[in-house]
Amino acid sequence: MSRMNNTILLVEDNPDDTELTIMALSENRIGNEIKHVWDGEEALQYLDDCSLPSLPQLVLLDLKLPKISGLEVLKQIRSSPRTNRLPVVVLTSSDEDQDIAACYDSGVNSYIRKPVDFDQFSECVKQLGLYWLVLNIGPPEM
Amino acid sequence: MSRMNNTILLVEDNPDDTELTIMALSENRIGNEIKHVWDGEEALQYLDDCSLPSLPQLVLLDLKLPKISGLEVLKQIRSSPRTNRLPVVVLTSSDEDQDIAACYDSGVNSYIRKPVDFDQFSECVKQLGLYWLVLNIGPPEM
Repeated sequence: MSRMNNTILLVEDNPDDTELTIMALSENRIGNEIKHVWDGEEALQYLDDCSLPSLPQLVLLDLKLPKISGLEVLKQIRSSPRTNRLPVVVLTSSDEDQDIAACYDSGVNSYIRKPVDFDQFSECVKQLGLYWLVLNIGPPEM
Repeated sequence: MSRMNNTILLVEDNPDDTELTIMALSENRIGNEIKHVWDGEEALQYLDDCSLPSLPQLVLLDLKLPKISGLEVLKQIRSSPRTNRLPVVVLTSSDEDQDIAACYDSGVNSYIRKPVDFDQFSECVKQLGLYWLVLNIGPPEM
């Protein structure tokens, strides 16, 4: 079985956070293609339209999203045999226990709170990028 | 809800890999207490004996283990409401697609292949330690 391709699906409705995340990934020589979508509906549509070999290597998912919430996107990813193995990292400003618990209960791989400070945000995205795109062995193609 | 405590449960039957992992965590100032067990049965027994607030913050799980395999340990962790949110990272020498797929299907958080080279092994353990013990927000107490 071959690996999935190396696209990162970034689901984020905040333009500043989007720009920061893309910049931090690029600056840290994480050369993966980034597909950015603004809401949960668009994220699910994108995954639905992907052929199996072009599913992303990582989904970076905000929680508070227009149309369909990040939690619902996560649940739908886990409920489909096409996408249920996809590594999903929630990257959010929420540190509420009920959000964190709901994400773990729904099969999130990791939960990261967005640092407010610019430099810390950049360092955080760098670390998570290197971890998931270099160190972690992703699932084989489904 | 409070967080779980900061113990790492290391499930590893190879003495060299055990020593290397503990050394790499200590050298990188990851000051978490490490509880080491040699097989899958002992791992499940340890988790069973833990009170809820003393469940580990991270389980580092080898796959090929005596008595009960790592995959079976993972499945039992995910099937119990006491432990189903625990972050579990498989750290193994296997890079076989069927092992990787089975782990993702069983709800592993991350799958890491042990580097053969000593320095790379140490760097790998450092990175995963920092990621899961510093960057990732663990589940609230169950």
